[in-house]
Amino acid sequence: MGIFIGIDLGGTNVRAGAFNPQGELIYSTETPIEAARGPQVGLETIYALLENVLKETQQPVLAIGIGSTGPLDRERGCIQNPFTLPGWEDVDIVSPLVQKYGVTVTLENDADAAALGEAWIGAGVGAERFVMVTIGTGVGFAFVINGKLYRGMGGEHPEGGHVLVDPSGPVCYCGARGCLESLVSGPAIAAYAQTLVLNQTGFLTEQTNGDFSQIDAGLVFSGARIGDEQCQEIVNTIAEYIGLGLVSIIMLTLPDRIVLTGGVIRSYDLLEPGIKRVLKQHSLMIPADKVELHLAALGQTAGMVGAARAAQMKFQETSYE
Amino acid sequence: MGIFIGIDLGGTNVRAGAFNPQGELIYSTETPIEAARGPQVGLETIYALLENVLKETQQPVLAIGIGSTGPLDRERGCIQNPFTLPGWEDVDIVSPLVQKYGVTVTLENDADAAALGEAWIGAGVGAERFVMVTIGTGVGFAFVINGKLYRGMGGEHPEGGHVLVDPSGPVCYCGARGCLESLVSGPAIAAYAQTLVLNQTGFLTEQTNGDFSQIDAGLVFSGARIGDEQCQEIVNTIAEYIGLGLVSIIMLTLPDRIVLTGGVIRSYDLLEPGIKRVLKQHSLMIPADKVELHLAALGQTAGMVGAARAAQMKFQETSYE
Repeated sequence: MGIFIGIDLGGTNVRAGAFNPQGELIYSTETPIEAARGPQVGLETIYALLENVLKETQQPVLAIGIGSTGPLDRERGCIQNPFTLPGWEDVDIVSPLVQKYGVTVTLENDADAAALGEAWIGAGVGAERFVMVTIGTGVGFAFVINGKLYRGMGGEHPEGGHVLVDPSGPVCYCGARGCLESLVSGPAIAAYAQTLVLNQTGFLTEQTNGDFSQIDAGLVFSGARIGDEQCQEIVNTIAEYIGLGLVSIIMLTLPDRIVLTGGVIRSYDLLEPGIKRVLKQHSLMIPADKVELHLAALGQTAGMVGAARAAQMKFQETSYE
Repeated sequence: MGIFIGIDLGGTNVRAGAFNPQGELIYSTETPIEAARGPQVGLETIYALLENVLKETQQPVLAIGIGSTGPLDRERGCIQNPFTLPGWEDVDIVSPLVQKYGVTVTLENDADAAALGEAWIGAGVGAERFVMVTIGTGVGFAFVINGKLYRGMGGEHPEGGHVLVDPSGPVCYCGARGCLESLVSGPAIAAYAQTLVLNQTGFLTEQTNGDFSQIDAGLVFSGARIGDEQCQEIVNTIAEYIGLGLVSIIMLTLPDRIVLTGGVIRSYDLLEPGIKRVLKQHSLMIPADKVELHLAALGQTAGMVGAARAAQMKFQETSYE
């Protein structure tokens, strides 16, 4: 017996869960991380959370995994994220836990952890190769082959969310014009809607009293859902861009499945017809329309689940050496 | 001791070579395939070629690999190519060789075989993961991870040459507008040049006596090389498109190296500045400008070399089982 602990460290909360080797959750708990109080307080918070998990489960810990918002240095086990974790610059989070608990501890980017979680017990189960695309504030990407994360040069993770879609599109901080993120992320949808000449009598004008800076992606989807024509057109355009991004992903990786998640994908029912139309149109060379499109299954817990899975994989790897 | 035989079956010639386990060529020979005379004659030609190799090497054959122009059914060992091998529709090329020589025989797409060859003893050596992009009459793509071909859904190979680049670009038979192949293949370069309003006194007008249908990619590169301004502009545009295609490939696969080959790449010196400028511009999120760009090392023999390597890999796999 024994448990694998997964820790999901976000900008707001930290969450820890204990899993048995089959991926069944035994116990989980969460608490605010209060990142602004600095990494030392944060570590104490994590220790307390772990003590709680250990007390509740009463089982030996086999390994610990941490999924964290990036940037991070996976090899060195350091978090380098002054952006969403103020003050957390080059914070070694792995060594203290190794010293305290005497087990293998591993660190993953949170998007990668979420993909591992879906691969273990979620929407990735049964797919030899799948790509996970997270469309929310940004566009994340992970590529899982036979249950393992594909890693690029130097062990770094690819940035498929910035695959190019339209060179006449908006400028992105990644250096591109018209990368996927610049066209279909939540903020990109809002920005696109704000550039249009909006109908005086339409849903967006009505809801914002003409202050178009208030438009966000959610409002656009709400309008499309109640039949506002202009919102529906915007959604169709976004669906087409998502479809084109997926086509490039499929041309390069030909996965068995694509798992979609993120805030924008909560409106997948509105986007699906447009996405599928684009995939069908690009299915002459390769079976793009045969690639399964699944919604992620684990929701907010994916990162925690995947962190535990990363711990288990590292544990198995170390045990075999 | 013993040898691995690689066979490269093209639309015009068939070539066979014997390699030792270290990838050293011991003997090779080639002959016209005369595909139009049908698959039975073709098989006899291949038998004769193999007999020649066996006689010259006087060593036991461990395994045979065939690289062939596609389409083909790798699992079933069948060539399905009535396009460049007239009459070769669903021709089982593996079973007859298995029966005749009593060894493992394996079949690969020729582009994949070429990538395996470069991975074994060519431009891919030392790269943990590399992508090979062939830009010629079409645009081919292969993705090699730790010396093995990455295969997509159902074992099929991805079609990264059709990654999308510009949705306002030309229509391609793949169903897309502005995929990489539709913009930078040899015929695409010619077609693009022909759509421009060409200078009355320029190189292209002069060389074709105004019959612009005679323009091909080679002529455009020749003009650029001697300083014709319009040809240089065309080459810069093509270089930018190649760069944008490589950016998407890098965003998704973050390889250590990209190996370039094909007829268009013979003019790589003219394209390189534009390609590198685009990669540099897209290096903020990931080190796109750190990805090594190499030219293929094996030339016309890559397919034969890689077919032998495929044979060796299959032999090792089977021996370990």
